[in-house]
Amino acid sequence: MGGFCGVISKDDCVLDLFYGTDYHSHLGTHRGGLAFLGAAGFQRSIHNIQNSPFRSKFENDISTFSGNVGIGVISDTDPQPLIMHSKLGAFAIVTVGFINNIEQLKEELFEKNCMQLQYSTTSKMVGPTEVVSALIATQSSIIEGVKYVQKKIEGSCSMLILDDKGRLYAARDRWGRTPIILGKKDGAMIALMESCALDNLGYEYVRDIGPGELVELTPEVDITLLEPGKRMAICSFLWVYYGYPASSYEGRNIEMMRYRCGSALAKRTPTVADAACGIPDSGISHALGYAHEAGIKYARPLVKYTPTWARSFMPQDQRQREHVALMKLISIPGLIKNRKLVFCDDSIVRGTQLGKQAAKLYSEGCLETHMRIACPPLLYPCRFLNFSRSKSEYDLITRRYIRGHEGEDADISKYIDPDGECYIKMVEFIREKLNLTSLAFQRIDDLIKAIGLPAESLCTYCWTGKDVSMDGEGYKCPCSSCPCASSK
Amino acid sequence: MGGFCGVISKDDCVLDLFYGTDYHSHLGTHRGGLAFLGAAGFQRSIHNIQNSPFRSKFENDISTFSGNVGIGVISDTDPQPLIMHSKLGAFAIVTVGFINNIEQLKEELFEKNCMQLQYSTTSKMVGPTEVVSALIATQSSIIEGVKYVQKKIEGSCSMLILDDKGRLYAARDRWGRTPIILGKKDGAMIALMESCALDNLGYEYVRDIGPGELVELTPEVDITLLEPGKRMAICSFLWVYYGYPASSYEGRNIEMMRYRCGSALAKRTPTVADAACGIPDSGISHALGYAHEAGIKYARPLVKYTPTWARSFMPQDQRQREHVALMKLISIPGLIKNRKLVFCDDSIVRGTQLGKQAAKLYSEGCLETHMRIACPPLLYPCRFLNFSRSKSEYDLITRRYIRGHEGEDADISKYIDPDGECYIKMVEFIREKLNLTSLAFQRIDDLIKAIGLPAESLCTYCWTGKDVSMDGEGYKCPCSSCPCASSK
Amino acid sequence: MGGFCGVISKDDCVLDLFYGTDYHSHLGTHRGGLAFLGAAGFQRSIHNIQNSPFRSKFENDISTFSGNVGIGVISDTDPQPLIMHSKLGAFAIVTVGFINNIEQLKEELFEKNCMQLQYSTTSKMVGPTEVVSALIATQSSIIEGVKYVQKKIEGSCSMLILDDKGRLYAARDRWGRTPIILGKKDGAMIALMESCALDNLGYEYVRDIGPGELVELTPEVDITLLEPGKRMAICSFLWVYYGYPASSYEGRNIEMMRYRCGSALAKRTPTVADAACGIPDSGISHALGYAHEAGIKYARPLVKYTPTWARSFMPQDQRQREHVALMKLISIPGLIKNRKLVFCDDSIVRGTQLGKQAAKLYSEGCLETHMRIACPPLLYPCRFLNFSRSKSEYDLITRRYIRGHEGEDADISKYIDPDGECYIKMVEFIREKLNLTSLAFQRIDDLIKAIGLPAESLCTYCWTGKDVSMDGEGYKCPCSSCPCASSK
Amino acid sequence: MGGFCGVISKDDCVLDLFYGTDYHSHLGTHRGGLAFLGAAGFQRSIHNIQNSPFRSKFENDISTFSGNVGIGVISDTDPQPLIMHSKLGAFAIVTVGFINNIEQLKEELFEKNCMQLQYSTTSKMVGPTEVVSALIATQSSIIEGVKYVQKKIEGSCSMLILDDKGRLYAARDRWGRTPIILGKKDGAMIALMESCALDNLGYEYVRDIGPGELVELTPEVDITLLEPGKRMAICSFLWVYYGYPASSYEGRNIEMMRYRCGSALAKRTPTVADAACGIPDSGISHALGYAHEAGIKYARPLVKYTPTWARSFMPQDQRQREHVALMKLISIPGLIKNRKLVFCDDSIVRGTQLGKQAAKLYSEGCLETHMRIACPPLLYPCRFLNFSRSKSEYDLITRRYIRGHEGEDADISKYIDPDGECYIKMVEFIREKLNLTSLAFQRIDDLIKAIGLPAESLCTYCWTGKDVSMDGEGYKCPCSSCPCASSK
Repeated sequence: MGGFCGVISKDDCVLDLFYGTDYHSHLGTHRGGLAFLGAAGFQRSIHNIQNSPFRSKFENDISTFSGNVGIGVISDTDPQPLIMHSKLGAFAIVTVGFINNIEQLKEELFEKNCMQLQYSTTSKMVGPTEVVSALIATQSSIIEGVKYVQKKIEGSCSMLILDDKGRLYAARDRWGRTPIILGKKDGAMIALMESCALDNLGYEYVRDIGPGELVELTPEVDITLLEPGKRMAICSFLWVYYGYPASSYEGRNIEMMRYRCGSALAKRTPTVADAACGIPDSGISHALGYAHEAGIKYARPLVKYTPTWARSFMPQDQRQREHVALMKLISIPGLIKNRKLVFCDDSIVRGTQLGKQAAKLYSEGCLETHMRIACPPLLYPCRFLNFSRSKSEYDLITRRYIRGHEGEDADISKYIDPDGECYIKMVEFIREKLNLTSLAFQRIDDLIKAIGLPAESLCTYCWTGKDVSMDGEGYKCPCSSCPCASSK
Repeated sequence: MGGFCGVISKDDCVLDLFYGTDYHSHLGTHRGGLAFLGAAGFQRSIHNIQNSPFRSKFENDISTFSGNVGIGVISDTDPQPLIMHSKLGAFAIVTVGFINNIEQLKEELFEKNCMQLQYSTTSKMVGPTEVVSALIATQSSIIEGVKYVQKKIEGSCSMLILDDKGRLYAARDRWGRTPIILGKKDGAMIALMESCALDNLGYEYVRDIGPGELVELTPEVDITLLEPGKRMAICSFLWVYYGYPASSYEGRNIEMMRYRCGSALAKRTPTVADAACGIPDSGISHALGYAHEAGIKYARPLVKYTPTWARSFMPQDQRQREHVALMKLISIPGLIKNRKLVFCDDSIVRGTQLGKQAAKLYSEGCLETHMRIACPPLLYPCRFLNFSRSKSEYDLITRRYIRGHEGEDADISKYIDPDGECYIKMVEFIREKLNLTSLAFQRIDDLIKAIGLPAESLCTYCWTGKDVSMDGEGYKCPCSSCPCASSK
Repeated sequence: MGGFCGVISKDDCVLDLFYGTDYHSHLGTHRGGLAFLGAAGFQRSIHNIQNSPFRSKFENDISTFSGNVGIGVISDTDPQPLIMHSKLGAFAIVTVGFINNIEQLKEELFEKNCMQLQYSTTSKMVGPTEVVSALIATQSSIIEGVKYVQKKIEGSCSMLILDDKGRLYAARDRWGRTPIILGKKDGAMIALMESCALDNLGYEYVRDIGPGELVELTPEVDITLLEPGKRMAICSFLWVYYGYPASSYEGRNIEMMRYRCGSALAKRTPTVADAACGIPDSGISHALGYAHEAGIKYARPLVKYTPTWARSFMPQDQRQREHVALMKLISIPGLIKNRKLVFCDDSIVRGTQLGKQAAKLYSEGCLETHMRIACPPLLYPCRFLNFSRSKSEYDLITRRYIRGHEGEDADISKYIDPDGECYIKMVEFIREKLNLTSLAFQRIDDLIKAIGLPAESLCTYCWTGKDVSMDGEGYKCPCSSCPCASSK
Repeated sequence: MGGFCGVISKDDCVLDLFYGTDYHSHLGTHRGGLAFLGAAGFQRSIHNIQNSPFRSKFENDISTFSGNVGIGVISDTDPQPLIMHSKLGAFAIVTVGFINNIEQLKEELFEKNCMQLQYSTTSKMVGPTEVVSALIATQSSIIEGVKYVQKKIEGSCSMLILDDKGRLYAARDRWGRTPIILGKKDGAMIALMESCALDNLGYEYVRDIGPGELVELTPEVDITLLEPGKRMAICSFLWVYYGYPASSYEGRNIEMMRYRCGSALAKRTPTVADAACGIPDSGISHALGYAHEAGIKYARPLVKYTPTWARSFMPQDQRQREHVALMKLISIPGLIKNRKLVFCDDSIVRGTQLGKQAAKLYSEGCLETHMRIACPPLLYPCRFLNFSRSKSEYDLITRRYIRGHEGEDADISKYIDPDGECYIKMVEFIREKLNLTSLAFQRIDDLIKAIGLPAESLCTYCWTGKDVSMDGEGYKCPCSSCPCASSK
């Protein structure tokens, strides 16, 4: 996915940006980048962070940087920040999102006489950030440019822009699919995606930028240049899986949302078990909620080896690859043997790893494995954020099941209703395939309640196939007690 | 501290050793090293791992290595493995421990005509591993050499040796202060310090080597060359703090020991609180045990930012250093504000960080902070393992208190008894200084019971000032119900 | 200055391009780059070569490259090759030259709706190669694009283009200021700037591309897409200083041209001396010609320490900088003491180093230092190639002299005629300032004869202030015996 | 071979040692190393210099070093400087030489209770410098230690030692096979192997240390601790090939010695030719002497591409290796075609490259190739310096010829006399095999005269099979006019 951070200060802002960006490391694994505007113009550094943490890679650069304003990014796609000259002047830019119609936009730009775009030797394509900056530069100002980008792209795009006058802009995606949060301390403001970074850097939370809103930040205030739109469709999966537990989006904290998720699962599908357990990392919080609601112990039969497995890592040596699959998690046999365990996990994509993990648990003497999933079955691959865990339709175990039973033209929507026969059979199929004692997914209304925002403000496309950008409506929650009731 | 791993196999053992050593990364932060014996003789690689994880640093070397036998190490001291020529032939060696009398041993070696030892430009001294290998080489065989090392050194030393005939030796410290565990799979054996590495690499636990025991490993069997001693003094702190939760030493699992620690704390000092919480990482397990025993919620108001703060890290840029102190942990305000919280932590050394953390909690609205410490007050700096958290006497908050109240010549032993007046005043002093609502330390007898081994088998020197190596007796637990009772 | 190389072959061309580009290393010191088009699209690598030779920096990349066609560059300016998407498709491009009107071109591009150009954090400007590629992309085809570039830029530009269909284009500067030479072997063609690279790579010389000519190369033939212009103004300084001795441009070999230069100097200003000597590197060949004509010994009282001083090198440590000035050359005292020596050098720019060198020679006992300069006094800073040795007017010792004697508005042309009083006084001033026993510069007609091309085909701007691009005429040699006579 | 440099100064000596060591780069290609003693004890750095020049590799270290005394080395063998603790205290050491009996010395050391020596994973052996330091440490002082080393080793060893009191020692090989030269400037002294480094660093030549002499240097004076021996056997090949032209050993400059070599060749074997030419690098000076004596032109039909081929370089990519052989030298066709050329080269080892070069010259139209070799035929592989160009007997073209004609037990001494039939037939064989128009080798007496030292002071073993270390006599020159006459 990716994440970004921008700081403008009366003093040097290098360390705030360095650490602020670092706290977005869980959102991406490919590249990190920082750009500052100082007395000597723009400075920039971009590093590959696949095998070494962000901080290690940028440590040596830090002493060479200075400036009162800068932007940083953790990117899963193109190398960023870009720094571009245009008729609007020079500006640095970072983006987070996904552009479905990038090839079409490229052609339109060439038709408009945009001469050229850099070729990426990695992707053999143009980079989304450069396309965004070219779209901006077709317009008469950065304000018009941002408006134009939000109109043209299919997918999503939040961005930070730093121009050569030292002006720092933050523009949230049209539908607010990704968050941008503002913080403030004496003589400085910060814009970022993970609010958890505010506190340790001394910033107080100010507010979430609205969907489609464009603000300019000064060391003192935030000025709205484009008013927020009326509708929002923030990604629900940020709470379920992506976000860091200490962060809050739209005022809803992730850790506490996950406790509520676990709690809802325990209420809906009570189970007799010796302990509730989480699949690290995100499953831990879901399991804590489950354990408390169910009144059973929370235990850690599976611990993650964080000292060196903190991050994803794909070894280049063939001999190593075969070893890697289950390396991150280590079992504690005494907490497994002869026990009946409930496990919470964020979601099931392919199901492969979960099946292997279950087999391993049985081999270690586990009597029963009850799997509780914090969200409904994933039925539709993400079209808005390139949510990497479900790249293509048939990566999804649900879609492979449906294709196997109905062929490629099946009506997927039949599998949404958790009380419907299709859904029940599908879940039973998955349970059996993964050899689980029992399996239950979160219900969509429970999930929405756990988040605590109106259904109309959330993107639930991957579970419901509906989104506000498609029909102007999005998913309407049928229940009467959930937060969306307020907007009915 | 450091940790090591050795593998001998009928097949290539490179990956087993690579991953096996990697799983010791939490035991050290300075250097990692691997040595193999293959068709072309010894191969070796040593890297600095201070800013990048072990696996990243060795990934490129792996494809250049091959061999059926090898040894690896995570070292906090000298660069290892060493590979030496001697009249006993060539051999590779890794050590974990601490040699108090290294300067004296150096002089004795020079008197014996040992010509020279490498000068370390880092420490301006000779390295302990080279001294150990020189001591070995004064004797007529590796067996005699290991015996001689155990006799001569003051401190502790466990080691692995790989000779140029492909023989792999594992020798545990005379008093067994550090563990060595043997594992086996079809056609291979492994010796290591953290048993948690066995399972993911496909090895079954065989046994713990005894104190002072020397074994030779083949791909099939382990052969005892020096019988284990009768007395053991394994470091109790391995369970409290150092070890990885999934490991077991002498058959006692760490995670479960910590649950028992937390449980004992909850029994001895019940508290009215909204939740029990752990200071990551080791405090988490203690807190889980506390929560369950106390029947209150376990919650995570402080989460560690593992993606990039998994490991200790000392930035070189001055501006960065001031930022680092409290960066690892992130607060979740909603789990702190207006709450009464019990926190579990492994130990208190200086108390500085804990005091700052408490102040931060209050500033975030925490109503009460009840601190429960998983072990007794640290009164004596470690003499056996260079336990890095208490380098000198007056690093200890306890000793600074005692000096302040009684001067430098105080009788420290008066502060051991948890029911004695001195102890009670000292704890109250610490509580007040750190501004905690309440503070309680584990009692030594509860700690021993939580470990589950006889008191005579444990080193409790840092709490009791007594050790088997000093008086031939060690600490005798006064209680009648603890595991040591069996040996009374 | 910079240099480039392009290869198209029926087989893999990676090594031919790697070594072919490497043989241009003497033309630049900043960056090297290679781009190939293979089955997987474009591949590219760019490295800083300031502290390490081209080959060392690219050695590891070579095994990852494959392709039948590629382009490489040694660049003193922007990072190259660029690979761009445009409405003409994707193409890779390298350029050598200098664009005086780059800011104006940038503005024109923005007016034409070119949206953006990358900002260089090094130069705080846009890079010339990107501007060239943007100019090309404004047109309907690469042919029209190249034509347009040659029309728009003030300065010079030779270039290689590799498009995504695998077509390799070579376009020489409009006035042919820099050369492009074609070579051929069985199943492959090469285009490059230094013909000396042909032989060791197995290519036969085919021809020099004409001024303004655009050719497409196939593995078999070269096809002229734009006919060469009628007038040429190839840089004379290529022979005097820049080029590698074994290369030939327009059929005139550099080493032999330098022998003729030295010979002409010996004829014009005979001197009684013990030996003729060269200031390495280019002065060596001039001195050989001098020695033979004068019938005196050639000797090497100054040798260059090539093992590590092969290349320019600016140390980052302040203590080092003070040391560097005269480090490259080492004196042989026995060849200096009590001797009268003639020294040949390519040119005098500031004169600083030469003055220091002379002082050093005297201190070592040299009796007389007779300096012979292979070209006339430099009076006009280069406007076409950014000839780095004369960056600004008043870097030139001649211009500082003229300013000192006549002020800033002096008529420089008075100082061109070697028989005129102004010239004679200026040379005497320089001689005295540098404390030389005697000083003589080459005459322009002798220089032209040494090159062996008609005066009208050469750029002599730095000595004569005249150029074909300024008045359509360029410099007309007044003598009757020089090669230009043929065209009169 | 290798080279070293040591500096002791009243001020910081870091830069003098850095540049002083750098000027020995032509003597080795594997590793460079520097060690300083400063306020914080010893500092050391060792780098691989195979693909990047010494200065580039150490540039970043320089700013971290400080000290008034240090030693540096260019090593073709083990990583140096070593820094060792011993009963003599700590000391740093560098060595240049070759130890034939290293295995025997190792065993003797182990018998003496030397416990251990580091195993080199590169050579699978112990390193010569560590053996030397261990031998020193067996004795009661550094003086006795150096004496003992010179007695025990077979081969040669010159060394620098820096002890932990800041004392700098220079000890020349027993027979003076390699030189050590002392220089002095105000407040500093330097000891090194290449005198050419003195001048640019501001040092005046003081003297050559004598064979077997040990001196201690202070910033002011040199103090002889061990008197020089009476006999010297300095390597003659240092002048012929190894040394840098600007250096002098025992007062005889290399460049001028090579002029005399060329001159002697021209006198002995006059030839009708268009030009005299050198095979770079060492052949150049020989050819200059030849040209002047013969009264013909010196020309450069073969130039070395120094910008990137300054140093030997063995590429790792297989495709590259096939390209490398003749890459260093570039032909200038106009100086070859239809010409009769005399070429001077230092020596013939295998003859392979020379044969290929001759074939290339003919293919470029050379009419005649007359080869003149600056020394006699190499008949005996070097036993004293591991002179890398003749590693084993049958690497030598002479020995392969003799084996082919007489078998393995031939009397080699028959081939020494240049007027004898065996010699004449052998030279004719080589000429024919390499397809040369004519071939002549230097006569031993001419070579000795060119050096200008008495024959008894020179090692001529590779040509005569005799050496002072073998029979106490060495080679006696039969002629009456050579410098050795003075000692007859």
